[in-house]
Amino acid sequence: MFSLLPKEEIFFDLFEKSADNVHRGAQKLVDLLEHYEGIPAKAQEIKDIEHAGDRLTHEMIERMNRTFITPLDREDIHELACRLDDILDLTDTAVNRMMLYKVGRPTDDARALARVLERSTATLKEAMPRLRRLNHRADVEVLLKACVEVHTQENEGDRIEQHALATLFENGQSDPILVIKWKDIYQDLEAATDRCEDVANVIEALVLKNA
Amino acid sequence: MFSLLPKEEIFFDLFEKSADNVHRGAQKLVDLLEHYEGIPAKAQEIKDIEHAGDRLTHEMIERMNRTFITPLDREDIHELACRLDDILDLTDTAVNRMMLYKVGRPTDDARALARVLERSTATLKEAMPRLRRLNHRADVEVLLKACVEVHTQENEGDRIEQHALATLFENGQSDPILVIKWKDIYQDLEAATDRCEDVANVIEALVLKNA
Amino acid sequence: MFSLLPKEEIFFDLFEKSADNVHRGAQKLVDLLEHYEGIPAKAQEIKDIEHAGDRLTHEMIERMNRTFITPLDREDIHELACRLDDILDLTDTAVNRMMLYKVGRPTDDARALARVLERSTATLKEAMPRLRRLNHRADVEVLLKACVEVHTQENEGDRIEQHALATLFENGQSDPILVIKWKDIYQDLEAATDRCEDVANVIEALVLKNA
Repeated sequence: MFSLLPKEEIFFDLFEKSADNVHRGAQKLVDLLEHYEGIPAKAQEIKDIEHAGDRLTHEMIERMNRTFITPLDREDIHELACRLDDILDLTDTAVNRMMLYKVGRPTDDARALARVLERSTATLKEAMPRLRRLNHRADVEVLLKACVEVHTQENEGDRIEQHALATLFENGQSDPILVIKWKDIYQDLEAATDRCEDVANVIEALVLKNA
Repeated sequence: MFSLLPKEEIFFDLFEKSADNVHRGAQKLVDLLEHYEGIPAKAQEIKDIEHAGDRLTHEMIERMNRTFITPLDREDIHELACRLDDILDLTDTAVNRMMLYKVGRPTDDARALARVLERSTATLKEAMPRLRRLNHRADVEVLLKACVEVHTQENEGDRIEQHALATLFENGQSDPILVIKWKDIYQDLEAATDRCEDVANVIEALVLKNA
Repeated sequence: MFSLLPKEEIFFDLFEKSADNVHRGAQKLVDLLEHYEGIPAKAQEIKDIEHAGDRLTHEMIERMNRTFITPLDREDIHELACRLDDILDLTDTAVNRMMLYKVGRPTDDARALARVLERSTATLKEAMPRLRRLNHRADVEVLLKACVEVHTQENEGDRIEQHALATLFENGQSDPILVIKWKDIYQDLEAATDRCEDVANVIEALVLKNA
């Protein structure tokens, strides 16, 4: 077998850049929720990161169109690029919704959910370089271990969302509008951790396919 | 290479019929929302279109079972047929929900979302005949351009939904039930434009696979 | 053609065990809703069944990693295992939510939705052994018939959910919090029947691929 041609390496470069960008979005979200001030500027930063993500996704798909032999199946490149993009979309959606709904100061549970997202995206970012070596047992094991971690973090996200909802119903009985608003925001945040799990699922499927 | 056998052309005929049917459903939805009268009869027309869509989907799958060589991979025919069907399902769901929830006269935002759906389904309908010529660069370019348009329209749908929700919370603070009802309807309408994007994604993946 | 090697039969054994486990979860849900007493113990039983499901899913994926030739494509084994698991996840989610939201006695519509889930999972469980014989016309026909039944049951689930929502809005106008809570629970239950339909869709795709 020949090693990968240099020009094929670009796909892995782009996946790493995308995972890094997704993680930066999650870090900015944690900062926004923990230091709740200067929100429009911070929200704009997250929107910029999301747009950078769109450009990376677009570049991957463009390059795929112009490349004869791709290092992974075209459908899998497409899927991985799109699922990474979904994480950032939801990060941005959660921030937008907080501004749109004018909810004011974030709850402890919202902050806890953002921190789960930060950890989960860090796990994906750290694992991503191993995608280059799907034929090395050791790298595959690191990848699969990262996927297990992402699943664990997603469970933690579920647990926090449940706690958040229970608290909301206890405190919010007198204001249904508040319940409606925070439920949506918690759901966005929890969905972002679910999309991390989707990325893990794509990676697991890639490992199986290329084992 | 031989050209496609006539009997294989039937799949493309069916995709075109299905996209046309989906677009007719969106047109009827716009009419229902813009001329809000005789609702049960108009809702029934949309339900009939939805049933016609089910029959088209079923015919595609049946034919695929009886055809030895299909012009596209079986899984892709299945996927495209199902995602087109999803658009009509959601169109019908939105109308049903309006009647079920007894919400009365539609809002401006509901009408705007329906018009986005009408444009998005028109784009898909117009692009569909190009699927027959995935090996022609010019047709592929038209297809990909249509997909970009559908993505743009989906963004427009998101933007309108955000505006709709902001308006709803401003006007609905005094009536949480009204907020609950319209949020669901906006979500159905926006989800229908999301499913147009899913169809675009399937088409993009098909283009990549057959490039 | 050789018949399948004995060690490959294990995948079908695991799918059958999984479908059986999913059905047991649905049966326990019906029991919990029809005899609404000793809820924590009954909820724990469902949680245990859900964990057993996770172990089965994990075993399938582990075995797939250690097996050179699999009787179905690796991606399809992965997909079928995950979608079956989703049904149990939602069954468990619905029960958790009822306890989390402290809703008290279940409604008639909640019970009706659970019974649809019981029937739908029974259909899947009974059809599953036919997966071993995708090259036999008669078995394929039974499989496809079961898929049609699951689609019908999913429509019935939709219909009940609609009735449930209409009733809820009529009775709940005075208490929006009650509307919010039950809407979520109905949605979990209906989503569980949707996931049965997803399993049917995977089976239909498998039939097409292996026809």
